[in-house]
Amino acid sequence: MPHRPIAPPVPDPTLAHRTADARLVVRGPDGTPLRRTDVVVEQTAHAFRFGCIGFDLIGLANGETADAPSVFGGASNASAPALADLWLDVFNTATLPFYWGGFERERGRPDTERLLTAARWFAERGVEVKGHPLAWHTVAPAWLRDLPVDEVEAAVRARITRDVTDFAGVVDTWDAINEVVIMPVFDKEPNGLTRLAWDRGRIATIRLAFETAREANPRATLLLNDFDMSTAYECLVEGVLEAGIGVDALGLQSHMHQGYWGEEKTLRVLERFSRFGLPLHLTETTLLSGELMPPEIEDLNDHVVDSWPSTPEGEARQADELVRHYRTLLSHPSVASVTYWGIADEGAWLGAPAGLVRVDGTPKPAYDALRALVRDEWWHAPTTLTTDDDGAVPVHGFLGEYAVTAAGSRAAFTLDGTAAGPVEVRLPA
Amino acid sequence: MPHRPIAPPVPDPTLAHRTADARLVVRGPDGTPLRRTDVVVEQTAHAFRFGCIGFDLIGLANGETADAPSVFGGASNASAPALADLWLDVFNTATLPFYWGGFERERGRPDTERLLTAARWFAERGVEVKGHPLAWHTVAPAWLRDLPVDEVEAAVRARITRDVTDFAGVVDTWDAINEVVIMPVFDKEPNGLTRLAWDRGRIATIRLAFETAREANPRATLLLNDFDMSTAYECLVEGVLEAGIGVDALGLQSHMHQGYWGEEKTLRVLERFSRFGLPLHLTETTLLSGELMPPEIEDLNDHVVDSWPSTPEGEARQADELVRHYRTLLSHPSVASVTYWGIADEGAWLGAPAGLVRVDGTPKPAYDALRALVRDEWWHAPTTLTTDDDGAVPVHGFLGEYAVTAAGSRAAFTLDGTAAGPVEVRLPA
Repeated sequence: MPHRPIAPPVPDPTLAHRTADARLVVRGPDGTPLRRTDVVVEQTAHAFRFGCIGFDLIGLANGETADAPSVFGGASNASAPALADLWLDVFNTATLPFYWGGFERERGRPDTERLLTAARWFAERGVEVKGHPLAWHTVAPAWLRDLPVDEVEAAVRARITRDVTDFAGVVDTWDAINEVVIMPVFDKEPNGLTRLAWDRGRIATIRLAFETAREANPRATLLLNDFDMSTAYECLVEGVLEAGIGVDALGLQSHMHQGYWGEEKTLRVLERFSRFGLPLHLTETTLLSGELMPPEIEDLNDHVVDSWPSTPEGEARQADELVRHYRTLLSHPSVASVTYWGIADEGAWLGAPAGLVRVDGTPKPAYDALRALVRDEWWHAPTTLTTDDDGAVPVHGFLGEYAVTAAGSRAAFTLDGTAAGPVEVRLPA
Repeated sequence: MPHRPIAPPVPDPTLAHRTADARLVVRGPDGTPLRRTDVVVEQTAHAFRFGCIGFDLIGLANGETADAPSVFGGASNASAPALADLWLDVFNTATLPFYWGGFERERGRPDTERLLTAARWFAERGVEVKGHPLAWHTVAPAWLRDLPVDEVEAAVRARITRDVTDFAGVVDTWDAINEVVIMPVFDKEPNGLTRLAWDRGRIATIRLAFETAREANPRATLLLNDFDMSTAYECLVEGVLEAGIGVDALGLQSHMHQGYWGEEKTLRVLERFSRFGLPLHLTETTLLSGELMPPEIEDLNDHVVDSWPSTPEGEARQADELVRHYRTLLSHPSVASVTYWGIADEGAWLGAPAGLVRVDGTPKPAYDALRALVRDEWWHAPTTLTTDDDGAVPVHGFLGEYAVTAAGSRAAFTLDGTAAGPVEVRLPA
């Protein structure tokens, strides 16, 4: 199945493609247009997925007080309520952890209930949930490590089927498989996924993950994800698409512990990967508010320090870089989602000052800056408009969900740029 | 078409897989076995392809005295006769230059006759000839550079069809396309191949090169070639094979201007690429007998120096490394060919002391060391054996062509390890 690249979409810093105009016709309960009447139009949700990991709030969601050990750290349950407020005030998409070694430490005893409860907690609050990752060579279960490769394959298939099925309807977006560029030649520790990818090949391993997940939940959005932004990932994606594997979106990691990419590199990465014609998700974004990791470190996990504080200069830099980075990402039409890798410095991966909230629970400038984008500059605040003789008002704003209120009654509508004619709403009685 | 990797063949430093045993039965002209007779058994050719570029001898082959300008340098015609003797004493495979920018500087006027003459000159001397490369983004013709991409594709197809057809029977091995990992994102200079690969995708561009060449010469051996030995090339090859493109062998470049890879890295590269189950050709091998290029240089072409001499210490090191390297390569069953990138320091690419022969025409220690491997240690010298009562002698040696002489008469036979029973020869009258 020949796959033809597309001409890369051109970035637009005005973000015109993130907005839409609509002529909103407001009708009363009886269907007649509400003429020359004051109505309040406001945005209620973004179409764009502003994501963040939700690891820190799993305990809170489950009503826990004691802190459970976690494969990727996380803030304490004591901090969680305050973090939850800050989290929900900005983000609409949560990545939850399905690292197999943590999720099914003991074979046959997956942490399903706990994660389901957490996923539902987010869903009830209007947050879309994503699961990460279904297959990865790191944080794989110890019991998998020495299984014959045929049994590894069977276990991978079984795990994907079980979890995608169990979570269907609550978690419908998954990183089906993670970091396949290096997977078959990953040599830091022996593991079953590496042996599987070495034996079967990368493409066959990716196919197995995608087909298994797809069968378990045909409605799911399935991603291929990687930290490798080089030609290696380009070649991998090309081979995968040419092989006819149904990838719904490309995941691009950007853990910038060693320094902000800058606009030029970011746009070049987006250009190269947008050619595949798939939505781009920046799945794992990190910017530091402290000292940068030295450039010679190849595996970020190798950088172990006793103390890595957030500093005033670092925080100012982080806020500036974050705004520049989000503006750049949203300027590119192919980008559909950006997930920040952790709201809290407390329990942050690698102990890095990577969060948007300090260890003491106070928001950093970067938090305020991001909130200002997501909830102010890129948000249609409640605005009073007067309908014309046809009961219509012009609405211009960021794509998403909206509500119009008049005479104590409220109706929802969507601004998605597809409306050919007016958007009609009827206020309930 | 799912492609399954193979278990990588295990290297054997004894080179047992490079040799075979046979029971040779020598018969006289009338068919009766030559019993209890002294016969001389000798090797006449290697099965293994010991290659070197033949660029330096094109002028000699064409009877030229004046030195023609060449896209990749080369020794002077005055030096060529002596170089030819040294060349033919070691190598059995020649790479000839088909850099499109040099071969068809003016559109419609390819250098066909000159290269055909050179190819025949080698063929008459028992040398197998290979053409390099049919498609590459570097040294492409100036007239190609600004053509619309559809015309670039048409020109590439036409060039491949024309040259593979014109040279069929003389040049039956080709690098169908070169350095595709970087091709679509190559940014040092604008060129048509990069635009083609960017627009169509890597795999489609590779498919076009291979299918066009295959149609022009169904018997040809077609290679994919690259300098990139990283996971990027692994991912590219996987995608290409999964897409069902008929690659006959994988070309791996090893221009070690920055230092000998060493046994460990070499074996790891061979292991990773042998998984595809294709023969491996080390197509472009360089070891220096002088100062190494600094490690921070990314594009070897960027290293421009006035003088880069061969030194006694460098020559000793080069000889040692070359022997270690060839032993390592031949120890791996997947390796079918090694081509050294230039016999002469005179006119060497980048002006590097990369040759096996000094500027003054004298052989370096590396030349002698390689010759000692190819013509002594790995060669069955003329050996007198006495046939038994059945007219047979045991032959053990490197795979290749052999001859047996007795009573002034000579017959040829092949030692290829496939003979189930005795190898029978009949001496002519």
